[in-house]
Amino acid sequence: MENAVLITIGDEILSGNTVDTNSNFIATELKNIGIKVSKIFTISDEIETIKETLQSAFELGDLIITTGGLGPTRDDKTKKALAEFFHDEIALDEVTFNHLKALMEKRGRLEILERNKEQAFVPTKSVVFQNHNGTAPCTMMEQEGKLCFSLPGVPYEVKPLIRNQIIPYLKEKFNLNYIHTRIVSVVGIPESVLADTIEEWELALPENVALSYLPIGTRVKLRITATGRDEMVLKNQVENEIQKLFPLIGKNIIATSEDRIEKILAEILAERNLTISTAESCTGGELAKMLTSNSGSSKYYVGGMVAYATEKKIEILKVPEKIIKEYTVVSEQVAQEMAKGCQKLFNTNISLSTTGVAGPGKGEDGKEVGTVFYTIRIDDKEYTSKLYLPHLDRIDFIYFVSQKIIQDLVGILISE
Amino acid sequence: MENAVLITIGDEILSGNTVDTNSNFIATELKNIGIKVSKIFTISDEIETIKETLQSAFELGDLIITTGGLGPTRDDKTKKALAEFFHDEIALDEVTFNHLKALMEKRGRLEILERNKEQAFVPTKSVVFQNHNGTAPCTMMEQEGKLCFSLPGVPYEVKPLIRNQIIPYLKEKFNLNYIHTRIVSVVGIPESVLADTIEEWELALPENVALSYLPIGTRVKLRITATGRDEMVLKNQVENEIQKLFPLIGKNIIATSEDRIEKILAEILAERNLTISTAESCTGGELAKMLTSNSGSSKYYVGGMVAYATEKKIEILKVPEKIIKEYTVVSEQVAQEMAKGCQKLFNTNISLSTTGVAGPGKGEDGKEVGTVFYTIRIDDKEYTSKLYLPHLDRIDFIYFVSQKIIQDLVGILISE
Repeated sequence: MENAVLITIGDEILSGNTVDTNSNFIATELKNIGIKVSKIFTISDEIETIKETLQSAFELGDLIITTGGLGPTRDDKTKKALAEFFHDEIALDEVTFNHLKALMEKRGRLEILERNKEQAFVPTKSVVFQNHNGTAPCTMMEQEGKLCFSLPGVPYEVKPLIRNQIIPYLKEKFNLNYIHTRIVSVVGIPESVLADTIEEWELALPENVALSYLPIGTRVKLRITATGRDEMVLKNQVENEIQKLFPLIGKNIIATSEDRIEKILAEILAERNLTISTAESCTGGELAKMLTSNSGSSKYYVGGMVAYATEKKIEILKVPEKIIKEYTVVSEQVAQEMAKGCQKLFNTNISLSTTGVAGPGKGEDGKEVGTVFYTIRIDDKEYTSKLYLPHLDRIDFIYFVSQKIIQDLVGILISE
Repeated sequence: MENAVLITIGDEILSGNTVDTNSNFIATELKNIGIKVSKIFTISDEIETIKETLQSAFELGDLIITTGGLGPTRDDKTKKALAEFFHDEIALDEVTFNHLKALMEKRGRLEILERNKEQAFVPTKSVVFQNHNGTAPCTMMEQEGKLCFSLPGVPYEVKPLIRNQIIPYLKEKFNLNYIHTRIVSVVGIPESVLADTIEEWELALPENVALSYLPIGTRVKLRITATGRDEMVLKNQVENEIQKLFPLIGKNIIATSEDRIEKILAEILAERNLTISTAESCTGGELAKMLTSNSGSSKYYVGGMVAYATEKKIEILKVPEKIIKEYTVVSEQVAQEMAKGCQKLFNTNISLSTTGVAGPGKGEDGKEVGTVFYTIRIDDKEYTSKLYLPHLDRIDFIYFVSQKIIQDLVGILISE
């Protein structure tokens, strides 16, 4: 059990209506128990296509996980394809039907509709994993020692099924190779220069250790993955390799375990007992969202303002009106005043502010789309920067700017 | 040119480190010019795997688009695989090299590193589409009338390449079938009941019109897609079918063109000249982010507060301390007071507030994880609701709650 293949079924993904987040979640969970996803097929909800893809998947992997195509509506054909593929039939499963009835009752839907009853029909040879958050059960078929799990497509049904049922099942059933992964976050060095700088180190990595580069905004994440039988050996091995990076690029490394920049920041803030607040214009709440995305964020995040309208920057953040008149609302000076007002309003050690034009429409003062000024204020020191990113669309602009600000803050805090 | 296959190359997706947003973007753009994505392969960065997948893709589709695996680092092998697959060689392309030099110069990186120069090496038979936002060019190979585009993997490089270069190229080169899609958003009716209610309508759809169900939170999106030669005919046809839905489920339909709930709301607000503000606790900025995600949102979104710390709810939103003491901070009464204070602070027609426990840690007043109270305040009317969603993890909880609130607001506004 080393090699998994994921099959994402349904036109939602292929038509561009939905981003596939399930694969990401499943791949991460499998990686943690040492199973590698070698391929993902995203296919349409057609019986022949599903059967053909199952065939390919069984040739490639020991574990197949399908998501999607199990809903109560006419366009879901996975169950039928599964039964045909495994030369099985679909029949009512009493245990599943009782589970379904109990679930519907809890939701106050007492009459079981014919369509919902259909959800309790499963391939007769399958093992059922009950779904506590939806009406479609998860089924597992076994063939020549290989397993095929079929899950519904709704992410909040997929997550608990994977985490609470399938992963523990796999862990118990198989004695798996262990995979240990660490991410080293590097800033202030372009990917190509970085690659040259650590080339010798990379070429000297042990055979069971792999390296990948993942550029994200102006940061490069180095993913170091070791595979083997002994967890402790792997941990030491990877730690060892990371230590060798420090003489080469130590000043560019901002983290060696955590991956997400907001989590890296969270740990620094919690460790140093620092509080933070935000005053956002063009980022529209993204900074607040990032800072509150970690559990326990109320320990350091006090609050934030989204001061979209200019007059609210004046009224609530106390940006002097004459500063706005003199320098326009998208300016270094206004970013600084916003951070100052924010720090005072929320009484925090650190405050972050943004003012810019996310586009695609021009800002009210005619500043060019893609321009942003941001200030990081720590006690009475302030750091103001400008970015000009006309090539990014609105959503990417907001994301890039927010990532960069938090990354800059981390950089300042660790070099202090 | 009807059928496209996407190939996503690189371990970032397979390992669960990155969510694949490129496929979603590309599928949407292709759909708009009548090209359907029939399959997506997500594969690792290995020459043999890439070549095998190219083979399968050429059997399935007329258009192949690969993303990823073109960076300047050692783990990117796509270019080599492409050259081998097409029995071609890689050579320095002078035009691409000059473009690269100009790009590096603009970025202030005057010395061209050897690794960056490698980026200007392309398969000799390929047509190059220059990348204005990164160092890896996009190449196109043609084989028996089928096209294969290879793009880098960074989303903000992919988007302009697809939108500004590849789509116009395909549009000009081929005389394509047109696809027209509309999304009907339905609320207040479970998917299975909905399916029963519109079954006859669905079975009577013309052969060139397809229906899909897409449940999202407590909303169901019906996607209606028509394919054919004449754009106007398709538009009328779909409009016609949508009109037939109204006698069946009219009171449950909240929108028939826009897809995203925040965009549906945006149109209503803009049309009625209404302003809105937000006061968030457990949603941590997500509501603000959603409301500002549309261009032009400054017309209706005035501003928001993320009042994470209880004392800031008192100080800034003027929630009376005794209300918090009497009912605890996660309560109907506090949600109402937050909305009231927010409406006043920002002087808007509408205000939204949230107070709850996103988890996984318990709230300070011991309220159970997954509990949230929210208030929608419109002028002097207020609507307060409670949700209890213990099965959702932190990120999904925040997303679900924010979607639900905006959906409720849309429901209230259109039924007024």
